[in-house]
Amino acid sequence: MRTIFVIGIGTGNPGHMTADGIAALCNADVVFVPTKGEEKARLAAVRRQIIARYGAKPRLVEFALPVRDETVTDYAERVSDWHEAIAGQYRHMIAAMGEGETGALLVWGDPGLYDSTLRILERVAAMGGRFTLRVLPGITAIQALTAAFAIPLNTVGNPVHITTGRLLSRGFPEGADSVVVMLDGRKAYAALDAKDLYIYWAAYVGMDEEILIEGPLAETRDAITAARDAARARHGWVMDIYLLRKTV
Amino acid sequence: MRTIFVIGIGTGNPGHMTADGIAALCNADVVFVPTKGEEKARLAAVRRQIIARYGAKPRLVEFALPVRDETVTDYAERVSDWHEAIAGQYRHMIAAMGEGETGALLVWGDPGLYDSTLRILERVAAMGGRFTLRVLPGITAIQALTAAFAIPLNTVGNPVHITTGRLLSRGFPEGADSVVVMLDGRKAYAALDAKDLYIYWAAYVGMDEEILIEGPLAETRDAITAARDAARARHGWVMDIYLLRKTV
Ligand SMILES: C[S@@+](CC[C@H](N)C(=O)[O-])C[C@H]1O[C@@H](n2cnc3c(N)ncnc32)[C@H](O)[C@@H]1O
Ligand SMILES: C[S@@+](CC[C@H](N)C(=O)[O-])C[C@H]1O[C@@H](n2cnc3c(N)ncnc32)[C@H](O)[C@@H]1O
Repeated sequence: MRTIFVIGIGTGNPGHMTADGIAALCNADVVFVPTKGEEKARLAAVRRQIIARYGAKPRLVEFALPVRDETVTDYAERVSDWHEAIAGQYRHMIAAMGEGETGALLVWGDPGLYDSTLRILERVAAMGGRFTLRVLPGITAIQALTAAFAIPLNTVGNPVHITTGRLLSRGFPEGADSVVVMLDGRKAYAALDAKDLYIYWAAYVGMDEEILIEGPLAETRDAITAARDAARARHGWVMDIYLLRKTV
Repeated sequence: MRTIFVIGIGTGNPGHMTADGIAALCNADVVFVPTKGEEKARLAAVRRQIIARYGAKPRLVEFALPVRDETVTDYAERVSDWHEAIAGQYRHMIAAMGEGETGALLVWGDPGLYDSTLRILERVAAMGGRFTLRVLPGITAIQALTAAFAIPLNTVGNPVHITTGRLLSRGFPEGADSVVVMLDGRKAYAALDAKDLYIYWAAYVGMDEEILIEGPLAETRDAITAARDAARARHGWVMDIYLLRKTV
């Protein structure tokens, strides 16, 4: 039987790796490495650092991630087609592993949070691909954010809402007091009704490039946009996350 | 200047420790160890394992956590009084550290998620206690849960709601599709309208005692209650967490 480890590597700081994640990486015969797509830029340098720092000696099997077919207009269908194409590729790569070998996929943050790897592996299994799956949890951008600011995620006894920029642009979630926003390429914070909201914003959190800005949303958002645009221009990409807290 | 590391240790599996968390622990001169309260039973064994496994040699400074004054009827006031008492104790312990020394507090899971350590340290600072604070993120019970089941936390592009048993007992959050429930001593899942809900339930997740049960809520909840009661009777304590997913 072949084994696949899906290893959460944290958010760009090799020190986020867990002891179990390191052990899994060092026990993997093969690490699958995407060489195309948005994953590439973010992951490549960090992956190399992690493999070097922890002395892992896996074979690296490179694969070109298929691109999404933007001519498919329905979003769900477009993502589904894309996942199916990746699943076909994974199936092939898993079959090409030696009998009894272990392969690893390194996933940014934690594999459970806004990541498609586990969903794609479910498709591989549905296609008849046979393997044992083990998931190694990782530090998410949410924990990296709150650690960087040394703040609690929730207020006492209250819930936390995790959402995306796309959904936030429809408005602040009804009744929420702590809202984490991820995947916000559209800067949804900028168009929000800022009354009684405080923002903790971080880009590249945990990484050398880390930028932290906090303050009442109304007074802070222009500075965030300026910092975000400048960082993006400088590095060619930006990943940011923020926590919005109701102040009354 | 004295330094305090607040280190997230994960949810009972020493392998959840991050490389940065291990380094911080090994650099700490002192680890503060609660010897009373609910923290004690959970933390004691795991803390010992972690310190031994990673070869840390800190001084252990034990302290008896004050107990909550249950005669204070207002919940917020009771918690506030209690935090103030703990803060006084922390302040004293920090002042007793040598000049330039580093002390560590080991926190279950991640320090940001349903934990009061950071809030209490804020009070210490407000009281005039002086120290540099550094937070090391940890694997939360949420990541441990989804890793154990090898499932995504969210459905594609949708939000995640994190809540408590107390709040869930008022009903399933309006419009939510993925709801994580923590701190549910009252078994709120048992009284919920179970229609179209699927549950992934875990106790002692990540630990040797781990129990995993999943299924449609209506068909599964009695088995969960039976497993939970039996586990609690056997171990003297139980920590459980679950993800409820809307199936339509
Ligand atoms: C596709 S999701 C993957 C999340 C990841 N699985 C995790 O557990 O954090 C990518 C989003 O995560 C957030 N993110 C990930 N790493 C980040 C970092 N180092 N700094 C800021 N945000 C980050 C951003 O909101 C980004 O849009
Ligand atoms: C006071 S909160 C602390 C949460 C912790 N800071 C974290 O990041 O997971 C305690 C709650 O976390 C959950 N929990 C923590 N560890 C757990 C474990 N090993 N198994 C199941 N649930 C756990 C339970 O819901 C429990 O009621």
